[in-house]
Amino acid sequence: MSERNDQGLFITLEGGDGSGKSTQAELLASWLRERGRTVVRTREPGGTEVGVEIREIVLHHRGDIAPRAEALLYAADRAHHIATFVRPALKRGEVVIQDRYLDSSVAYQGVGRVLDPAEIRELSLWAAEGLLPDLTILLDLDETVARTRLDNARTRYDRLEAEKAEFHARVRAAYLGLAADEPDRFLVLDASQPVDEIFAAIRRRIATLL
Amino acid sequence: MSERNDQGLFITLEGGDGSGKSTQAELLASWLRERGRTVVRTREPGGTEVGVEIREIVLHHRGDIAPRAEALLYAADRAHHIATFVRPALKRGEVVIQDRYLDSSVAYQGVGRVLDPAEIRELSLWAAEGLLPDLTILLDLDETVARTRLDNARTRYDRLEAEKAEFHARVRAAYLGLAADEPDRFLVLDASQPVDEIFAAIRRRIATLL
Repeated sequence: MSERNDQGLFITLEGGDGSGKSTQAELLASWLRERGRTVVRTREPGGTEVGVEIREIVLHHRGDIAPRAEALLYAADRAHHIATFVRPALKRGEVVIQDRYLDSSVAYQGVGRVLDPAEIRELSLWAAEGLLPDLTILLDLDETVARTRLDNARTRYDRLEAEKAEFHARVRAAYLGLAADEPDRFLVLDASQPVDEIFAAIRRRIATLL
Repeated sequence: MSERNDQGLFITLEGGDGSGKSTQAELLASWLRERGRTVVRTREPGGTEVGVEIREIVLHHRGDIAPRAEALLYAADRAHHIATFVRPALKRGEVVIQDRYLDSSVAYQGVGRVLDPAEIRELSLWAAEGLLPDLTILLDLDETVARTRLDNARTRYDRLEAEKAEFHARVRAAYLGLAADEPDRFLVLDASQPVDEIFAAIRRRIATLL
C-alpha cells in the first residue's frame, strides 16, 4: 500500500438508473478489499436511520412537497450522513464508495425541477461542510440504451424513471456539464461498454489515487 | 377597512417560551376578526402535515442529529409551510398570525448552537423565497421572570427550556440584536407588563398597517 494508506478516499458514483453504478461499486469494493483497504459502501438518500425517515417523508408526500422543501430535506439527509457516517470513516482511513452525492442533487433537482442548479450546489456544500469527493465516476448512458436495459431486466419503473425521456436527456446533459466543469474530479465513462472494460478504466484511475 | 383590505398581512410573534405569545396571538386574532378580517393562526415548526412529520424526526432523534441537518430540517418545514399555506393565505388577502418564524431559527439555532447566525438567516430566506413579515412582535422577557412563570404554571420543561439559563440569556440578546437591526419590522415589548397593556401597544402598531 502507498503512503496514503492512513488517509481515507471518498469515491462517488453518478449516472442515471440503469447505468451500472451498483455493479461497478461492487467490483471496486471487492478489488480495494483485496488490496487491504477497508471499504464502506453507502448511498444517498437514506444512508442513515435519520435519512431513511427523511426519505419516507419525501416518497410518502411525493408531488405534494414544495420544491424547496424537497431540496432541503435531501440536504438534511446529506448533512447528517456526511457528518455522522462519511467523515468518521474517512478519518479512520477507510474508502467510502457512495452511490449518488451532490452531483445527483444538482443534475436532478436543479435541472429537472424549477430550482437554480448553482443554489442547489451551494446548499449541498453547506450541508456537507464543503466535502467534495476525491473521485466521481460518471457512468454516462444514452437514454434510449438505458430504457432498453431496464425493460430487459423487467424492472418496475420508479418515480424518476416514469418521467419522460426528455427529462433524462436534460439530466444527462447536466451531468456532462458538471464533469466538464471539474475534469480533475470526474472520470466520465461510456456506460454502454462491457462491464469489464468500464471497470478496467476505473481501476486505472483509482490506482493513481492510492 | 382601509384600501389595503385586498392584501394580506403577515405578522409573526417571537420570544422565549412563557413570554405570552399565544395569549397575544389569540387577542390579536379576535380583534382583527371583529374588524372583518379573515385571520389564520399558524406556527413553525409543524404547521403542515409534512411539517409535523419533520418535527417528529427532530424530536425523536434529538441530540443525535448533526447540527446542519437539524437546521435544514427546520428550513424544509419552513419552505413547505410558507409555499403551501402562508403565501396562499396572504394572496387571498388574509391576515396570517404565526408563532415563531425565521428570527427564532436565527436566535435559537444560530446563537444557541454551533452554526453561524448569518448563514441560518440566509438558509431561512432561501427556504421562504425571501418572505419577511410585515410585523414581528418580540415579547421580550427576562429569563428569571420567564422561569418563575413556567414554574407557577407547573408546565413540564421541554427540550429547550431544560437547557441552562445562560442559553436563554444568549437567545434573548440575539433577539434584541435582530430587532435593533430591523427596527421597522420589529415591535419590541416588555413581556412582564400586564397583558392588556401589551395588547394595547400591539393594537396601536397594527392599526397603522391596516
